[in-house]
Amino acid sequence: MRTTQYLLATQKETPSDAEVISHQLMLRAGMIRKLASGLYTWLPSGLKVLRKVENIVREEMNKAGAIEVLMPVVQPADLWEESGRWDKFGPELLRIQDRHQRPFLLGPTHEEVITELVRKEISSYKQLPINLYQVQTKFRDEVRPRFGVMRSREFLMKDAYSFHLDSDCLEKTYQTMHQAYCNIFDRLGLEYRPVLADTGSIGGSTSHEFHVLAESGEDAIVFSNGSDYAANIEKAEALAPEGERPQANEQLNKVATPNAHSIAEVSELLKVDHKQTVKTLLVVGANDEGEAEGVVALVLRGDHELNEVKAEKFPEVFAPLTFAAEEQIKQTANCDAGSIGPVGLSVPVIVDYSAAHLADFVCGANETGFHLTGANWDRDINNYKTADIRNIVEGDPSPCGQGTLSIKRGIEVGHIFQLGTKYSEAMKAGVLTESGKHETLTMGCYGIGVSRIVAAAIEQNHDKYGIKWPAAIAPFQVGILPMNMHKSHRIPEVANKLYQAFQDAGIDVLFDDRKERPGVMFADMELVGVPHVVVIGERNLDEGKVEYKNRMTGEKQSLEIDQVFDFIKNLL
Amino acid sequence: MRTTQYLLATQKETPSDAEVISHQLMLRAGMIRKLASGLYTWLPSGLKVLRKVENIVREEMNKAGAIEVLMPVVQPADLWEESGRWDKFGPELLRIQDRHQRPFLLGPTHEEVITELVRKEISSYKQLPINLYQVQTKFRDEVRPRFGVMRSREFLMKDAYSFHLDSDCLEKTYQTMHQAYCNIFDRLGLEYRPVLADTGSIGGSTSHEFHVLAESGEDAIVFSNGSDYAANIEKAEALAPEGERPQANEQLNKVATPNAHSIAEVSELLKVDHKQTVKTLLVVGANDEGEAEGVVALVLRGDHELNEVKAEKFPEVFAPLTFAAEEQIKQTANCDAGSIGPVGLSVPVIVDYSAAHLADFVCGANETGFHLTGANWDRDINNYKTADIRNIVEGDPSPCGQGTLSIKRGIEVGHIFQLGTKYSEAMKAGVLTESGKHETLTMGCYGIGVSRIVAAAIEQNHDKYGIKWPAAIAPFQVGILPMNMHKSHRIPEVANKLYQAFQDAGIDVLFDDRKERPGVMFADMELVGVPHVVVIGERNLDEGKVEYKNRMTGEKQSLEIDQVFDFIKNLL
Repeated sequence: MRTTQYLLATQKETPSDAEVISHQLMLRAGMIRKLASGLYTWLPSGLKVLRKVENIVREEMNKAGAIEVLMPVVQPADLWEESGRWDKFGPELLRIQDRHQRPFLLGPTHEEVITELVRKEISSYKQLPINLYQVQTKFRDEVRPRFGVMRSREFLMKDAYSFHLDSDCLEKTYQTMHQAYCNIFDRLGLEYRPVLADTGSIGGSTSHEFHVLAESGEDAIVFSNGSDYAANIEKAEALAPEGERPQANEQLNKVATPNAHSIAEVSELLKVDHKQTVKTLLVVGANDEGEAEGVVALVLRGDHELNEVKAEKFPEVFAPLTFAAEEQIKQTANCDAGSIGPVGLSVPVIVDYSAAHLADFVCGANETGFHLTGANWDRDINNYKTADIRNIVEGDPSPCGQGTLSIKRGIEVGHIFQLGTKYSEAMKAGVLTESGKHETLTMGCYGIGVSRIVAAAIEQNHDKYGIKWPAAIAPFQVGILPMNMHKSHRIPEVANKLYQAFQDAGIDVLFDDRKERPGVMFADMELVGVPHVVVIGERNLDEGKVEYKNRMTGEKQSLEIDQVFDFIKNLL
Repeated sequence: MRTTQYLLATQKETPSDAEVISHQLMLRAGMIRKLASGLYTWLPSGLKVLRKVENIVREEMNKAGAIEVLMPVVQPADLWEESGRWDKFGPELLRIQDRHQRPFLLGPTHEEVITELVRKEISSYKQLPINLYQVQTKFRDEVRPRFGVMRSREFLMKDAYSFHLDSDCLEKTYQTMHQAYCNIFDRLGLEYRPVLADTGSIGGSTSHEFHVLAESGEDAIVFSNGSDYAANIEKAEALAPEGERPQANEQLNKVATPNAHSIAEVSELLKVDHKQTVKTLLVVGANDEGEAEGVVALVLRGDHELNEVKAEKFPEVFAPLTFAAEEQIKQTANCDAGSIGPVGLSVPVIVDYSAAHLADFVCGANETGFHLTGANWDRDINNYKTADIRNIVEGDPSPCGQGTLSIKRGIEVGHIFQLGTKYSEAMKAGVLTESGKHETLTMGCYGIGVSRIVAAAIEQNHDKYGIKWPAAIAPFQVGILPMNMHKSHRIPEVANKLYQAFQDAGIDVLFDDRKERPGVMFADMELVGVPHVVVIGERNLDEGKVEYKNRMTGEKQSLEIDQVFDFIKNLL
């Protein structure tokens, strides 16, 4: 591609509304443009990367035996009523009406549509297992779209759905998909980790997320240094402390703690370690029907953080987890939020294992401006249950039993689920078994955020000059940069010949044939992130040479004109 | 692909709600399934064809210098308010609201979005011309979706938009696109015609449609036998008859024509040729603001048909053309619709050239049950204007001046337009010229219905057994059909080896490894339309041979086992 016949659309200025580096660089490198909140047009360079990612995903899915289909973006509401998600799904589900006022939605995911297809097309165990996928435009009406295509409303996704007679068969396909995902991220050239994950609103049992590692990642991922255990922090189990709880030695004593609201302030005032305090959080409770009713107290050690995903799994806690309003706190504990404590509370109390392992601890006195010291479980508080409801912290023992845990940041780009029968049961999708019995199908589902991968790759691979693309997904593999081409006849001759050679070899090559200053052209090549650049200038040509520059390593070297093609071709 | 590891999904029964053959065959051959009215899931075989069409379109667009982008499906309403189409577009435009009640739409076309992009990205004449395209899912909320993917609500389209400094430059790109479209349809292996077309609601001046010829086509296309003139019947000009109008000889005479309402009945009763009668149609008129007001009379020769597209271009006719209601007819002509005539009408009268060339003709008497004979223009009717408002009929002289016209049926699969400044003016998209002046951009747009091509190809290429795919877009190029494979060891050996060879050569091959009766397998291969089929049976193997069958020609021949691969490879 010649830049004069292309829409390079690079920008010098960093757009003010782009918070993260990938969003900034995608705008500056001419990859995307915002049409409206969370809606982006992919410009030529961006689309080239998107398609390369898509193709790698497709090839590996095909190799893994999955079969490609294409479902509509617009889905009828009745299928979602059957599955129960029409009501359950929040406002991220964009509900629309057609000209006849019939209800439809823009698909954020396709479990219902694929189950509808499969229950009509698959009737016998002989047709199983089957794994169907698509690469398709999806829509989620995010309340606050941000980070460019990282959290946009319209996005490109690969979603696969497998169907099985039983969970053993599902497990096999799940492992095949796990491996296919590893192959995909290997080929993309990204540093990534598969981690144990919570199944969330999609439902099901086992689940893994695939994260691209990047300091800017929204998710915390937990790793063991003694094994290959890795999990999303939402899911990572915090073990109960070993050994017996220490004996109670102190008397319960109420102390004034005026203006001390946080754990830090209380610890400072009373000269105790954070680890010797507990914090008590009141959240909305749930009745037997799962409706919001009453309040539940969650107790954590002062230095620990609540894990909302773990907490909201308890039947007595309303999901999604909701903190009690000021009024409810007043009614329950008769004090401000900063002075709540478990002693004397008449609501259900769930205590994190680590908090439950303390003796003689400090807690709120349920009286504004006062705390208790020397509090002890079972002596001062009787009605409570213990559980894991906190986030892992660095140094915690690994739940696998080997090593301790550390935390890294990641960007979720893939997610695989063992769904089980959640959708097939609700939608009555089954087959006849070999013995002629009707059996409900067992399902798996497997997603990859294709457009999100593009942003994640940039978060992981950039420097102050721009993007450093892994070769497999660079918009252009090779750049040709002739300096002051319009003042020379030798330079265009060499440049054109080289351009032709790369084109003939089917290599994506960007030939910057603009009448621009060399500085501008260098900056654009670096910004766009072309991995291999050939610089053609008079001085080098005098010696029969051109300059080669590697974007990833920054290395430069002089090469003979007729060697440069082979040299680069060997690198690809 | 092995059928046992595939979703072949063929059906024996013809679905009752599929009216046209392509819809029936796409369902029966396992290409698509209906999700809801006008919404289809593409099954594996259908998607394979769709992607092959898409790729050919993409390759030829790239060769023609167009640059690919990808715009969102969901578009903000404000851009359509700028262009004026938010109000003008009918209910086919699906208007939606997001969670914040902001108005959006599902894009049926992308003129507004691309103009918004270009007015921001292109500021100088140096960046012109530019031709940007996408292959993307579109939505049109058809009032009555039908014919499967031929007229569905969600569909895949390639749409390109070019931008220029002036119309000479547009004309050049328009010709390039015209040629690219010819290349595309040539490569697809379809019989097609580019024809002159009306520009319709998209606007602009020059326009061509590309039609796949098929008897079942919805459109009539007009061809000259003396030149390469071809036009959509909506557009094809009917020339005024040559020579002088004959003299008036008869007296105007009112005759009773009880129960004769149609031209056929009146002609029969009065023993005159249809060609010696006129019919008078009353349609809704328009005032200076283009609002519906009053009635206009359209007069045609009895054997001719009104061309609504031509008629609604007259400022005095309301667009879209609407026939007058019974009440309006009574008020205007004081009679039933069957007895209207131009004599004595006090509304504007537009007379088709052919009707205006008659003397001594028969027309309605504006009195129910009566007609006039011996009517003559200028003597009996004074206030009228003449124009071309009829459809061409077979044998009419060609408007190009050479030859006469014939009519064929076609399916519109592509449409190219010289838009001019319609959108760029409304949306203020311009550039600075070389002399530093601001100039409004001139635009072209170029569409291809990718999913529709799949259906059109079938309408043109099928027989009673199924689809006869052109090789370039067949879901599978080669089929391997082993007979009673499970009772033999030689057959699977030969079949597997051949399958492997085709796979290794990158040829799309379908290996029917099911335990089905040969009859079922033959029927499926023919239904799916695999162009080249290798049948492997015991009897042939005894002689070291297999049978080759060509789907398009029906020819069969015996071939040596080790020749069949090369034989087929040479055909591809």
